[in-house]
Amino acid sequence: MLSPAFLSKLRGILPAHCVLHEREDLAPFESDGLAAYRNVPDVVALPENEAQVAAILRLCHAEKIAVVARGAGTGLAAGALPIDGAVLLVLTKLKRIKSLDPLARTAVVEPGVRNLAISEAAAAHGLYYAPDPSSQIACSIGGNVAENSGGVHCLKYGLTVHNILKLRAWTIDGQLLEIGSDALDAPGYDLLALLTGSEGMLAVITEVTVKLLPRPERAQVVLAAFDDVAQAGAAVGNIIAAGVVPAGLEMMDRLAIEAAEAFVHAGYPMAEALLLCEVDGVNEEVSDDIRTVHDVLAASGATEIRTADSEEQRLKFWAGRKAAFPAVGRLAPDYYCMDGTIPRAQLPHVLQRIREMSAEFGLRVANVFHAGDGNLHPLILYDVNRPGELDQAETFGGRILELCVEVGGTITGEHGVGLEKIRQMCTQFAAPELARFHAVKAAFDPAGLLNPGKAVPELHRCAEWGAMHVHGGQLPHPELPRF
Amino acid sequence: MLSPAFLSKLRGILPAHCVLHEREDLAPFESDGLAAYRNVPDVVALPENEAQVAAILRLCHAEKIAVVARGAGTGLAAGALPIDGAVLLVLTKLKRIKSLDPLARTAVVEPGVRNLAISEAAAAHGLYYAPDPSSQIACSIGGNVAENSGGVHCLKYGLTVHNILKLRAWTIDGQLLEIGSDALDAPGYDLLALLTGSEGMLAVITEVTVKLLPRPERAQVVLAAFDDVAQAGAAVGNIIAAGVVPAGLEMMDRLAIEAAEAFVHAGYPMAEALLLCEVDGVNEEVSDDIRTVHDVLAASGATEIRTADSEEQRLKFWAGRKAAFPAVGRLAPDYYCMDGTIPRAQLPHVLQRIREMSAEFGLRVANVFHAGDGNLHPLILYDVNRPGELDQAETFGGRILELCVEVGGTITGEHGVGLEKIRQMCTQFAAPELARFHAVKAAFDPAGLLNPGKAVPELHRCAEWGAMHVHGGQLPHPELPRF
Repeated sequence: MLSPAFLSKLRGILPAHCVLHEREDLAPFESDGLAAYRNVPDVVALPENEAQVAAILRLCHAEKIAVVARGAGTGLAAGALPIDGAVLLVLTKLKRIKSLDPLARTAVVEPGVRNLAISEAAAAHGLYYAPDPSSQIACSIGGNVAENSGGVHCLKYGLTVHNILKLRAWTIDGQLLEIGSDALDAPGYDLLALLTGSEGMLAVITEVTVKLLPRPERAQVVLAAFDDVAQAGAAVGNIIAAGVVPAGLEMMDRLAIEAAEAFVHAGYPMAEALLLCEVDGVNEEVSDDIRTVHDVLAASGATEIRTADSEEQRLKFWAGRKAAFPAVGRLAPDYYCMDGTIPRAQLPHVLQRIREMSAEFGLRVANVFHAGDGNLHPLILYDVNRPGELDQAETFGGRILELCVEVGGTITGEHGVGLEKIRQMCTQFAAPELARFHAVKAAFDPAGLLNPGKAVPELHRCAEWGAMHVHGGQLPHPELPRF
Repeated sequence: MLSPAFLSKLRGILPAHCVLHEREDLAPFESDGLAAYRNVPDVVALPENEAQVAAILRLCHAEKIAVVARGAGTGLAAGALPIDGAVLLVLTKLKRIKSLDPLARTAVVEPGVRNLAISEAAAAHGLYYAPDPSSQIACSIGGNVAENSGGVHCLKYGLTVHNILKLRAWTIDGQLLEIGSDALDAPGYDLLALLTGSEGMLAVITEVTVKLLPRPERAQVVLAAFDDVAQAGAAVGNIIAAGVVPAGLEMMDRLAIEAAEAFVHAGYPMAEALLLCEVDGVNEEVSDDIRTVHDVLAASGATEIRTADSEEQRLKFWAGRKAAFPAVGRLAPDYYCMDGTIPRAQLPHVLQRIREMSAEFGLRVANVFHAGDGNLHPLILYDVNRPGELDQAETFGGRILELCVEVGGTITGEHGVGLEKIRQMCTQFAAPELARFHAVKAAFDPAGLLNPGKAVPELHRCAEWGAMHVHGGQLPHPELPRF
């Protein structure tokens, strides 16, 4: 619990309407997009400018109060879950687009600016911001940087870290860090990449300079149906092996297809698996790639192949995919969206193992994911009111992540680790890497006040969980305790 | 000086032929590619396997002996300059290509493998490794990672950090770090990017997993002459603004053109500035881009435009550029190759200022550089035997780097900081960033044994030099003392 003395100091920094402490005002902030984790914050601070952010950090540093930074709260790994006795620092009021340079193709924005708002502002110049998480209408760029967010198009255009140039960030003791440059490279250790994906544990970002790209001359999408999931998985590898770099290469399995059809009637063919492959670029390049993709899909055993021949049809092809999560949400009271990444070659094997585990746990799974970059999003269906099902869903999810590591992949593609995956960090990394993570954390935040307990597990916790990874060794599969 | 006791322990780890300590054996290692900085090492260790590297690091850690890691020694910033009382750890004997996976498009190589050797090994599969420093025939991948090397093609294909997936690295206390993954992203702080460009100050790399790219279907180059350098600089921005992403966009000024012509007779037109713009990709895309580039160059005031219509001619166009450094080397007893990066829009202004400074210092400058990504390589001509000229050349070079910072650029594009640019780090960064760099260093190497004194200046040194950068303030131009 925060002391009245501290709260009054906080009110000394912020106007009254920027400090929330009444229970009903705090409730909306009890969780981010991963609603299975909830904790009502003690206080919410909503700074309106950079100076206030710095002052709050200095205050918290002086009083040894923890700080959890939060953007739009669309995160899916409980990275912004409030912590008792901490200030929830919500940056949504910092939402100015400070400048946009169409010639240099950059925009300087505050962390609270919505991802999509950047592309909307750039559209007048024929430019856009490439990373497009499915939450892009709501999620903020600050959160995108904190989690190194991706999206449908990151296969071709990269993750957030590949699409930003500079950051203004504040350390817990209120020092300004100006990181990166407008040029190609920056000297010194790469703090830009280090802060990107650091989940608010190293510094608090107050400004982001993003790269803007010219809108591609043309985009076209091909839809292919398969009567076998593994075949569809293999087709993904074949497309890449053919030398095409799709702008997006998405996969849905039968359960996801059925759900999407029932929800938005996209006109998808019923099948065991569906691939959506979009290519973009200059006209001839797109025609070329579409031909190649079509041939590869046919050779890979697609039972039906459709090519969108109008922008209207292209959007219809995407409608089902874009609505897949809410659509699947209608199949069960609750679903748990996983996020792991695997080498493409492992897709058939991993999809098969997920099917087997689904039977083993007695929980249905809908697969909707960025197949092109091996970024899986299995949706585990459960009912929180059925005793033990949440536990089962989480254990199942954990097993999927451990499977990703087992085949040479990682426990996150674009959602981050947060609190959700902190146990799987013990399987992903060995003690030396984890020790280095803690040392890097201490280099920025020696007192451990920024988002404590997230992203990087204490070594002893890994030992307790019996899940410590051994280089080159077997992965243990202990019954992991609930948090 | 290293004690006989230490040397005998070192000989206990390595076979006799892998420990060099005779003066004549040590001489070749007294400098890297920046010969203005020389220091004969006390001892050279040439491990033949990873276990020996780890054992040497453990020994040095136990005995508190500094370690300077070195690859092929082609670096241009004195990053591998030997330090008195330290072990020079030369990794050239670790030169196995351990595996190459054409489907996943990756290769796993040891640090001593030459940059070009990777592309040679991949050629059989129609693949290549994109980053191509001009030293690529000799430079090793370990050094490329240590300096985050670029090359002619990094405008389109990125720097080393964008073309590697995983690292095996050893901390000074002999712990193995396995960093990165075969998948799109890795959880935890981005240690892969942090180690890339860290100049051997955080860990010693013993294995690199690189990405391989399919050889482009076609590459074509356009040559354009300008009778005004600033016009050529503006043309560079116009090409990018037209939406073309050239595979390479190089610029040479009159002195460089004359030198190259006299040396290799590439048939270049005499002009104040020459642009070489290469585009690659699928056939139609290339034709499209070549048309666009041609139109933009004409509209930008090019006095002559030639398009290579055969592979033979393409190579001839490049011959002059590739030979430019040795060619300029024939104009004066010595030259000093600078490396700074600026926002493209600043090219005309910066080239003008360099001309003015050239007159001011009475030293000729040949400009040969990666114009597309704003990476300047001014070659300052001097004669080390003329009293004071080396000092003048270095002061001039320092001014050029400070100018780069002044216009929003950086003091390095692809050569790193090493010892050469350590003073300019004080203008590039303010105290908070430098303090964070030191903290990150301490997180990996608390005793400061890995390549001490390179890349990141002590704060008090910046104060002594009077060159401390003030956020948003003016840049001081003190007479910087010689090292």
